[in-house]
Amino acid sequence: MKIEAVDFFYLSMPEVTTEADGSQDALLVRVTAGSHVGWGECEAAPLPSIAAFVCPMSHGVCRPVGASILGQSLHAPEDIARMSAAVAYDSMDLLQAAHTMSGVEMALWDLLGNARGEPVWQLLGYGHSHSKIPYASVLFGDGPEATLASARKIRGDGFHAAKFGWGPIGRGSVEADRDQFVAAREGLGPDGILLVDVGQIFIEDVEHAAARLPALEAADATWLEEPFQAAAYASYGALVKRSAKVGLAGGEGAHNTHMARHLIDYGGVGYIQIDCGRIGGIGPAKWVADYAAPRGVTYVNHTFTSNLALSASLQPFAGLADHRICGYPVATKPVAQAFTRTRIARDSNGEVRAPEAPGLGIEIDPEGVRRYLLDVEIKVGGRVLYRTPAI
Amino acid sequence: MKIEAVDFFYLSMPEVTTEADGSQDALLVRVTAGSHVGWGECEAAPLPSIAAFVCPMSHGVCRPVGASILGQSLHAPEDIARMSAAVAYDSMDLLQAAHTMSGVEMALWDLLGNARGEPVWQLLGYGHSHSKIPYASVLFGDGPEATLASARKIRGDGFHAAKFGWGPIGRGSVEADRDQFVAAREGLGPDGILLVDVGQIFIEDVEHAAARLPALEAADATWLEEPFQAAAYASYGALVKRSAKVGLAGGEGAHNTHMARHLIDYGGVGYIQIDCGRIGGIGPAKWVADYAAPRGVTYVNHTFTSNLALSASLQPFAGLADHRICGYPVATKPVAQAFTRTRIARDSNGEVRAPEAPGLGIEIDPEGVRRYLLDVEIKVGGRVLYRTPAI
Repeated sequence: MKIEAVDFFYLSMPEVTTEADGSQDALLVRVTAGSHVGWGECEAAPLPSIAAFVCPMSHGVCRPVGASILGQSLHAPEDIARMSAAVAYDSMDLLQAAHTMSGVEMALWDLLGNARGEPVWQLLGYGHSHSKIPYASVLFGDGPEATLASARKIRGDGFHAAKFGWGPIGRGSVEADRDQFVAAREGLGPDGILLVDVGQIFIEDVEHAAARLPALEAADATWLEEPFQAAAYASYGALVKRSAKVGLAGGEGAHNTHMARHLIDYGGVGYIQIDCGRIGGIGPAKWVADYAAPRGVTYVNHTFTSNLALSASLQPFAGLADHRICGYPVATKPVAQAFTRTRIARDSNGEVRAPEAPGLGIEIDPEGVRRYLLDVEIKVGGRVLYRTPAI
Repeated sequence: MKIEAVDFFYLSMPEVTTEADGSQDALLVRVTAGSHVGWGECEAAPLPSIAAFVCPMSHGVCRPVGASILGQSLHAPEDIARMSAAVAYDSMDLLQAAHTMSGVEMALWDLLGNARGEPVWQLLGYGHSHSKIPYASVLFGDGPEATLASARKIRGDGFHAAKFGWGPIGRGSVEADRDQFVAAREGLGPDGILLVDVGQIFIEDVEHAAARLPALEAADATWLEEPFQAAAYASYGALVKRSAKVGLAGGEGAHNTHMARHLIDYGGVGYIQIDCGRIGGIGPAKWVADYAAPRGVTYVNHTFTSNLALSASLQPFAGLADHRICGYPVATKPVAQAFTRTRIARDSNGEVRAPEAPGLGIEIDPEGVRRYLLDVEIKVGGRVLYRTPAI
């Protein structure tokens, strides 16, 4: 097969707000090779990501992502790795390239799996897709009451794990944050797995983060996620020594395997969270899973958007039976639900797993795509480099 | 002053080739506040960088760069730092943001310096702009003869230092590379400072890089630059132990201060090379200089393009008298020369320094900008988000 076309679809809610909800827009990628099609999704700013695929070359190692993909042959996983390596080298000076490639690479796996009639996790070398414990991923309420209600609802919906994130945490007092953690624990019940995500709010300030540790320990939080900037490894490494009970989690900001590795080696995280829509796709994410597992670090998917993204994010650790926790979006915006017909639902045990179907196993709903589609047109020097294609 | 407008100008040679010559296009940035104007330059892919300034918000921490700049007040260096921090947080999920911000931040310093009548290095707290030894930065020839001729010409032009980069190094045999190093040394003479840049060719493979160390030592190279990917700190750290004579240099790929710090702390580089057009601008670069100096690491600018980029890149270490080596582009494409009237020329000692004039001290030539200007138009959802402005 030869890659004949790579098409991008920029979907968005009519109104996008400043809340930390990444499901307000989406960048879908469709790759076509002969009679086969694959779909992927960039967890990234749509317009710059499209631009990074179609832009004119700046020089030999600042080429558009498209230059390493279009016209390439695809027959085996090695071909995908070859294209990823080409993007990494030939686009080394194009910062956005990794985010663009993430959705493209996902689509390449989907396409290859569809063509071969095999699920992606099988192409990755796994013999079985193990079930995972989904955690409901939601934002903290504005106050403890809202968080308590949200936690109770999650519990009522049958979840055994929940992640509360962002909101007012780190912006007010230690006591205010403690009240939030207490509320989340109370609503979730004593045996629920409680995860806390503070969205880089402490930048690199170890002491401000450490001040929250006693309250997190009292609430029996399993992990504290992203206390610092994605690359502030030294701060992670310092904070991890301050609690024997609460582990650190991070990695969603990794846009290459080095960054994930450094969070493990230098940052000491116990949970490495990879977003396949940012790290360059499924192949790099699998590399991280292979690196984490023998080191006693738990691999976790980072997913806050669609079921397409969720399927992609489950593949890299589908075969790791002991890596049980799984990010599971439950409060996404309609746009993130509209464009897939398939749902990865919880089974009778309340668990989820990567689909058994070929590729990523997710059927796209063209009508749903059209409903939220934003037309994009990019012209340079009078020439149209991109125009939203037909779906 | 209030930031009223930020305009981008995408300049390009009529034909762009795959050679590793970053001067084939340019992204100029003009910032306007009241009666004052400042200019900067992104060392980045122009189209995705423009897109990162004007794109619609995706969510609270994936906002366009413009959201943190337009309408902001600018009276002191602290205001620039505040805007940089806003971009780092509010655009944390927009990968290209750092490259976009780099040119904008440069322009903010230029504007502030122009308004105050002070050179930027003075605004940074330096009392004096020390002269530097410029190295002529050129590419290796296709074979040793071409490299020899190039080195002789550099010597004949009065340079005491030269950096040879990219070309065939690492793509063929160790012997072929040795012949190149020998040719460069021969042409440069025994007392010239020889620097070698291999453009990440060994990806993260320590042994392939180490195989070139004996030849580099024999040629008395001062540094080996970018043997590995920008974030492959562990490989840097392993290679640095293999030679007591040849230092490692790197950092041009750093798009935040963390990356530069990690190359020092984990990678053990002796020379930290910062491109102000990528790391987020002059402020972050100055932070790196402050971090490097007390640790015995030499700060070096990375500059391969215009005199505007050169002036910006000299500011962060203008006051560090002992940090003498300075990247100095000598073989740029016409586009990189056309848009500035000012030239940072070598003095009678063959040395260069950051200008004494206010701001960055570089006058833009609008006629030169127009000569290479590519019109860009970006439309999303029927709305024009960007159209090349008048110059």
